[in-house]
Amino acid sequence: MKITKITVTLLTIAGLSAAAFAANLEPAEQIETRQAGYKFMSWNMKKIKANLEGNYSQAAVQGAANAIAGIANSGMGALYGPGTDKAIGDVQTRVKPELFTEPEEVGRVARDFIEAANDLVEVAALGDPDDVKTAFGDLGKSCKACHDQFRMDKK
Amino acid sequence: MKITKITVTLLTIAGLSAAAFAANLEPAEQIETRQAGYKFMSWNMKKIKANLEGNYSQAAVQGAANAIAGIANSGMGALYGPGTDKAIGDVQTRVKPELFTEPEEVGRVARDFIEAANDLVEVAALGDPDDVKTAFGDLGKSCKACHDQFRMDKK
Repeated sequence: MKITKITVTLLTIAGLSAAAFAANLEPAEQIETRQAGYKFMSWNMKKIKANLEGNYSQAAVQGAANAIAGIANSGMGALYGPGTDKAIGDVQTRVKPELFTEPEEVGRVARDFIEAANDLVEVAALGDPDDVKTAFGDLGKSCKACHDQFRMDKK
Repeated sequence: MKITKITVTLLTIAGLSAAAFAANLEPAEQIETRQAGYKFMSWNMKKIKANLEGNYSQAAVQGAANAIAGIANSGMGALYGPGTDKAIGDVQTRVKPELFTEPEEVGRVARDFIEAANDLVEVAALGDPDDVKTAFGDLGKSCKACHDQFRMDKK
């Protein structure tokens, strides 16, 4: 399997070796799996938002933060392999071509995202909703930074 | 919103209050989100299996174990709300009716699953592949126990 420069960058960021590649997924499956990760993180972001706006449950927020960080740190770069830059049959993707050609910028937004997710886990464990609100805002900004640069708008 | 007995059971298992419900998702979105969680866990199970069968990377296995446990502990019971027991439009589900009528048994398999996922995180951090292999096997069995009882076969 050809390992692209961008994927190596993303794996390096996540502290993972090429061993992560051993579980090869077909390109369409890579697209579906990365989208599954984002969907599950999105649900957990919504839960944290709802907790900050309503009754705050530390257990619920911690659980959601851990889920997001677990996914963020799992080496999702391996899900942007060759052939995953455009739709495959019914499997659509909104990824921009730039994600595959701008490894340094991708690395920067990926690092920011992982760092923000890990920070949220730390403050969620301490339990101060104000600190969680700040960390949650920072995490949201790191999501948006990647969406703005590397995701197409919905048609 | 009506909170079913089964959902309360699952939330209790995960140590979560009803606050987790604040982020209400529509039934179809609940089905898609739980399937996203399972898909992402499945990818991480495959990675661990590949590491156990090939070159073992502790970082990769830890990352995968943390992702699985993060998802497992995020209160997925909230994604089995009313109206999510059968297909909604194009959104299919293989859940069996029993999942909504046998809360005690669901609670048992859910507890086993969460415990096995947390055990895997612990041994993955210690880094002995033999221990990881055992814990990984136990986790696989806990997945299968739920599939056998509460998931329909593929058509």
